[in-house]
Amino acid sequence: MKLYEQVATTLKDRIDLGYYHEGDKLPSVRGLSQEHGVSISTVQEAYGLLIDDGVIESRPKSGYYVLLRQAPPELPATSSPASQPLVVAQWQKLQHMINEYGSQETTKLSLALPDTHAATLKPLTRLMAELSRSANRNVLDYEHAAGSDLLRHQIARVMVDSGCRIHPDEIIITSGCQEALSCSLRAVTEPGDIVVVDSPSFFGSVQAIKINGVKALEIPTHPETGISLEALEMAFEQWPIKACLLTPTNNNPLGYSMPDQNKIRLLELLNRYDVPLIEDDVYGDLSYTLPRPRTIKSFDTQGRVILCSSFSKSIAPGIRVGWISPGRYREHIMMVKYLSSLSTPKLTQMAVAEFIAQGYYEKHLRRVRRDYQRDRDAVIGWLKREMPEGTRISYPQGGYLLWVELPEQVDSNELNTRAKARGISIAPGTLFSASGKYRNFMRICCVNSSNPALEKAIVTLGQLSRELMAQTLLPHE
Amino acid sequence: MKLYEQVATTLKDRIDLGYYHEGDKLPSVRGLSQEHGVSISTVQEAYGLLIDDGVIESRPKSGYYVLLRQAPPELPATSSPASQPLVVAQWQKLQHMINEYGSQETTKLSLALPDTHAATLKPLTRLMAELSRSANRNVLDYEHAAGSDLLRHQIARVMVDSGCRIHPDEIIITSGCQEALSCSLRAVTEPGDIVVVDSPSFFGSVQAIKINGVKALEIPTHPETGISLEALEMAFEQWPIKACLLTPTNNNPLGYSMPDQNKIRLLELLNRYDVPLIEDDVYGDLSYTLPRPRTIKSFDTQGRVILCSSFSKSIAPGIRVGWISPGRYREHIMMVKYLSSLSTPKLTQMAVAEFIAQGYYEKHLRRVRRDYQRDRDAVIGWLKREMPEGTRISYPQGGYLLWVELPEQVDSNELNTRAKARGISIAPGTLFSASGKYRNFMRICCVNSSNPALEKAIVTLGQLSRELMAQTLLPHE
Repeated sequence: MKLYEQVATTLKDRIDLGYYHEGDKLPSVRGLSQEHGVSISTVQEAYGLLIDDGVIESRPKSGYYVLLRQAPPELPATSSPASQPLVVAQWQKLQHMINEYGSQETTKLSLALPDTHAATLKPLTRLMAELSRSANRNVLDYEHAAGSDLLRHQIARVMVDSGCRIHPDEIIITSGCQEALSCSLRAVTEPGDIVVVDSPSFFGSVQAIKINGVKALEIPTHPETGISLEALEMAFEQWPIKACLLTPTNNNPLGYSMPDQNKIRLLELLNRYDVPLIEDDVYGDLSYTLPRPRTIKSFDTQGRVILCSSFSKSIAPGIRVGWISPGRYREHIMMVKYLSSLSTPKLTQMAVAEFIAQGYYEKHLRRVRRDYQRDRDAVIGWLKREMPEGTRISYPQGGYLLWVELPEQVDSNELNTRAKARGISIAPGTLFSASGKYRNFMRICCVNSSNPALEKAIVTLGQLSRELMAQTLLPHE
Repeated sequence: MKLYEQVATTLKDRIDLGYYHEGDKLPSVRGLSQEHGVSISTVQEAYGLLIDDGVIESRPKSGYYVLLRQAPPELPATSSPASQPLVVAQWQKLQHMINEYGSQETTKLSLALPDTHAATLKPLTRLMAELSRSANRNVLDYEHAAGSDLLRHQIARVMVDSGCRIHPDEIIITSGCQEALSCSLRAVTEPGDIVVVDSPSFFGSVQAIKINGVKALEIPTHPETGISLEALEMAFEQWPIKACLLTPTNNNPLGYSMPDQNKIRLLELLNRYDVPLIEDDVYGDLSYTLPRPRTIKSFDTQGRVILCSSFSKSIAPGIRVGWISPGRYREHIMMVKYLSSLSTPKLTQMAVAEFIAQGYYEKHLRRVRRDYQRDRDAVIGWLKREMPEGTRISYPQGGYLLWVELPEQVDSNELNTRAKARGISIAPGTLFSASGKYRNFMRICCVNSSNPALEKAIVTLGQLSRELMAQTLLPHE
């Protein structure tokens, strides 16, 4: 065996043993050459061999990476929701899910919860402790209704990565993204109005629509490119639509990011039909690749896009720090925010501002982007192995949510009921539609694949799905 | 001079020098006897002399107190608002006030801000720091939508003091009282509905009514006994009223607490006409005398009263911890709260829960109740001395807000504009009405009378008021 073959074999073994994961960056050529006491060109030959074997890939100007050994999953089909505005149903199921949140024993795949135990969050809790103790007791006073100055400056800085150049005064701090969405929706609609959503669509948005007395018009949505612009244009022609509410980047639940050209075309449509867009970007910073995709807001020159986001998914949900960049609707949105909750708690705003300003946020993102991509791949692997044939899975390029289409016989509400008896919860598909569609879909959160409970939960979901299929078939035999 | 006269003179001197303030408790008889090396009966004789001189009073089973040397102020008259439902105006003035919140240099009498520098709050910031650092990182996770279990238990315990016996499950934690009021209002009304308020009425409630598309019907209100029940009954007969929104205890801005018999009669009316009550009790715990007044909720056997409160006024506003005890409307209010902001930040909930559980809240209340009563008396004294003749002042029995009726010629919006140029802000009366009434009224916050800036501000307000009166008179001369 030649020297470069030996090096290649060693590397291959390490990959097989899981020392390097799929998508991981491999050591630099110089580093390996030092480690193995071989020449640079020997390492290059070894890497060349592994590329030829389809084990790794070279990314220009970046380095060598372990190749994904599994093909992307088979994706769900483009959705075909009801073609008229609907009053949103399904509240009771959601309520059920909320009420169960407290239960400690469950493997909760149902909620979109980030990894709050990441080591890179340690500076945040330290900052919170330090700020709590500061002598001037700032943290006990009201914050300005629009939010902390420092935080708004830092958010403006972070938003540059998504292509936005926004002045801190054009930012309003909220209690998480839900308050951002809810206030925006209240500001631009009135009861009886029609709002466009993608389909499937995040249940928090869908239900916020319901509670405002507004109707939801669901538009067919592709699992990779997002909302169908053709269908949307038809809808604009047909209905007096007052707003669009979309999650165009690292969508929840489908995982898609709309290509830039689609984002631009969408904005053109909005301008032509004079419709505001509420853009939910809460998963935007969790894109696996850099630079992160641009927001639609970044293309907007008319102040038409209301960008809503938060650090609930990218830092931690319990801190409840979100924001709105309200465009031309600032005055009205500010009023709604003020009368909804006056202001957002001060301590967490100050802590997050310092966390970003001191460079910890970027460091944290680097860490979790890699982790979540690893988690996605691991869980997709298990789903492929464990779920019944015919299962289709989304293939997100950011975040930590998977949208899973089960065989038609599997009712995910029933699956959830049975899973709960085994200490596992999922988010049933019907939650993600105004009309109760997606009966045989589920959304699962795939954070922390190194926890054995996660793999075990997928095994259980596979067994239960097969049980349900068998029982559905029984009467027909 | 006899021995008891000497002791009396010493005490009198201490009072005159401000060592003991009006309303302060004096040392015990035993304590004084030890201090002066005199007999118990000598001290009793000394106290007797001071009582006869009208300097102190004896309160049965409590001790000796410095008597209030000034008579209560002349109160504003019962209000006579417009007698039909109105769409609320005045948003722009409020917006102005909000936007100015950040300005550091102002003596802000405009906002209802408690003393966040009280020594008795030190354990709170310590708890916040400790909890931030706790190893399990609990503080970063979502709290249950209804709020922390421990906190809800503690609130249920605190509410016993207001006569309420409520199970922790009947409590929903919110981001301050504003979110509590806003969610309650959204749950029980629809756009176009009519809601009853007292008059004057807290601008946060009035504007929350506006933003829900609801109309406000203002009811005449007495400065000592609150809303006129006769007028309310007439309103129930005349209009299809969907809810009442009142602050029956330590009212903002008027300061009244409805007598128990009025609270009971009000509840009877609500039951008879099948109308829910949103009871804002945010100043309830700040009553100067114990036991604190009962809430209307405490008399409610039908689940008709939605109690809204928070620790923003009794602990600190920046922590944003409020709550709702929603009665029979729980399910709907829970849904509105969830879709407004998912859940309330965890850290501050945990810190407040421990603050109460460890007995610090009671200790803090004892301290601030005394301080705020002292502040009230001091500021009323200055107002009487400095403001033009004809000025009337409310006489609250709790909290730290004064409602001041200025001579008719004084437009408080203009007064505010001029005061701001001198670094002082007030809350103009028109903010407290749907129709822009109370043009010659202002609300001022009288916390921290030991700060010389507060007395100086009152002096300035007096000068500016007289200026305005002179200018108004000029054209007629």
